[in-house]
Amino acid sequence: MNDAVYSTQDFPSTPFLAVDAAIMDRNLETMAARAAASSLSLRPHAKTHKSPQIARRQLELGAVGLTVATLGEAEVFAEAGCTDLFLAYPLWVTDARAARIRALAERSTLRLGVDSADGAEQLGRAVRGSHVQVMIEVDSGHHRSGAQPDDVALVATAAQAAGLEVAGVFTFPGHGYGPGRRAAAAADEAAALATAARAARSAGAAAVVISGGSTPTAADADASVLTEIRPGVYVFNDAQQAELGTCGWDDVALFAVATVVSSSGRTVILDAGSKVLGADQPAWATGGGRILGHPEARITALSEHHATVVFPAEGALPARGDILRVAPNHVCATVNLADELVLVRGGAMEDVWPVAARGRNN
Amino acid sequence: MNDAVYSTQDFPSTPFLAVDAAIMDRNLETMAARAAASSLSLRPHAKTHKSPQIARRQLELGAVGLTVATLGEAEVFAEAGCTDLFLAYPLWVTDARAARIRALAERSTLRLGVDSADGAEQLGRAVRGSHVQVMIEVDSGHHRSGAQPDDVALVATAAQAAGLEVAGVFTFPGHGYGPGRRAAAAADEAAALATAARAARSAGAAAVVISGGSTPTAADADASVLTEIRPGVYVFNDAQQAELGTCGWDDVALFAVATVVSSSGRTVILDAGSKVLGADQPAWATGGGRILGHPEARITALSEHHATVVFPAEGALPARGDILRVAPNHVCATVNLADELVLVRGGAMEDVWPVAARGRNN
Repeated sequence: MNDAVYSTQDFPSTPFLAVDAAIMDRNLETMAARAAASSLSLRPHAKTHKSPQIARRQLELGAVGLTVATLGEAEVFAEAGCTDLFLAYPLWVTDARAARIRALAERSTLRLGVDSADGAEQLGRAVRGSHVQVMIEVDSGHHRSGAQPDDVALVATAAQAAGLEVAGVFTFPGHGYGPGRRAAAAADEAAALATAARAARSAGAAAVVISGGSTPTAADADASVLTEIRPGVYVFNDAQQAELGTCGWDDVALFAVATVVSSSGRTVILDAGSKVLGADQPAWATGGGRILGHPEARITALSEHHATVVFPAEGALPARGDILRVAPNHVCATVNLADELVLVRGGAMEDVWPVAARGRNN
Repeated sequence: MNDAVYSTQDFPSTPFLAVDAAIMDRNLETMAARAAASSLSLRPHAKTHKSPQIARRQLELGAVGLTVATLGEAEVFAEAGCTDLFLAYPLWVTDARAARIRALAERSTLRLGVDSADGAEQLGRAVRGSHVQVMIEVDSGHHRSGAQPDDVALVATAAQAAGLEVAGVFTFPGHGYGPGRRAAAAADEAAALATAARAARSAGAAAVVISGGSTPTAADADASVLTEIRPGVYVFNDAQQAELGTCGWDDVALFAVATVVSSSGRTVILDAGSKVLGADQPAWATGGGRILGHPEARITALSEHHATVVFPAEGALPARGDILRVAPNHVCATVNLADELVLVRGGAMEDVWPVAARGRNN
């Protein structure tokens, strides 16, 4: 598609976020088919898109429910009719949060993450009498939250003593977000989950759900251990996944549409900066995102409203006023900055979807 | 103030953004007094706070008008009654944007940035008949947007030929955001602005406004050259400014209120991640933000909903459920992620202010 189409009056002024609907549909179908082929339940992480329209499409394609990161996200998706939610985060449950959790548990199947005995006790006390299940988080090598595998039995015992049903165990193999690390992270994931599930069961928990997975590790998820995967980014993909080789550039479905506003030599300035793209940039990334159709161009700096893009010495050089499409490094951060996504199909604007759960951080 | 106050039911669940009203008031007054003492006009950059309440306070304290980064921000502040606006950005003005600029120019004094002859021609054609002034942006060493000093006369000539009044010249000395760089960047700023003003005047422009300044360079702004400064961050300050020495830690007025949700050894996990704090982290920063009251603690990693904080081997270690306050690295990015700011005075919630211009990126 010629990028100039985005300069017509049918579209918003730049910068804005566009979604190529055909690519998104293919991404959704491919992951659904992959999970089905491995007999893994797919519970996509909705923090990536924060959009009821996309969540419904995921559920139509066979997802067993959604994963969310915050109580606010859970409330938005429950409101939109998604009634099987896993809040994959070790919330500390205050009284105010307990009231919201109770209300949510009345309209949706609800699982919450826990990763410590005192977190489980606090939760159990706060939601006593509500039907809330827990999933015990185990650290598989990312070293963020998550109990150490040896501590899972303790957490399971505390949770059950606090009146909570332990539905299973989960991990996030976030250390798989790096060049050449996917297979090893997926192996770590399976090993930690197998240990954690045994420990939880030894403590008397049913722990039937063994949940892992992320977009980079989903293809390597060990179906002999896992029962469920929770990829998020796959719906859109992003420059990070393409640079890691998890997807091709033709699989990137979301991009910022930006205008060249300034130019000097082989450097051009776009009007999409970090307040549109997000500032995430892992050390191994080639820049602050990538320009679609210009594989050699590099985003060497992002400020709030400027992307500095250096084009190679030879070849096409966009002029002031030209429209370019930018694949962000990390699409979850990008979507979280926008109020809406412009859905494009066949070069025309098909719809505008609100990012309904944006800003629902607590 | 004891951080535990934030765990009372008067406050929202964590994570949320709080503003210490007394510190903010002092920051506003100090900058207003500094500008007045140097006979410099103060035109604060409203992209930092995006809040009409704060803009009104800035104007009450003597600011001549506001600086904004996008047309959407300009619209929000005009709607709120701010009628002297400088959009310090080299917009590429399409027909759709021209209609919005015309509407805005009818209710507000409006200056727009330009940094190229063709940008000026495009703007002049698009807004012909409206009263829109331009300010010519000059590059003073940050190497982002801005004409080279030698090209300013060309831009001024093109702007006037296109029917635009050239009100002045401006620059953003962004290369002053680094340890030990403030004074040199302020000198570069003054030199580039002096050259640019001469060039614009030699082309027949009045160019009475010589506008520079940023929070780190404001104290070094050369009042023999500049007529106006445009700091933004000073209203709240942030970890970046405190680490640069532009302010003290006691001058940081905005922070994320966060809960310890997980813990292992001397590492604790907070529920404020990059979707609350922002991901900005210059190479010289000590981490992903700073924990107020714990000067030796370091935020070693941020994911979307987790801050990983390493505490020193000795000393206090927060427990799960404890509340901590996090000074973000770059407060403009932080505010841009939130829907509201919780105003705190004397340990009590005084008000909740909407971040009215959040998401107005185009």
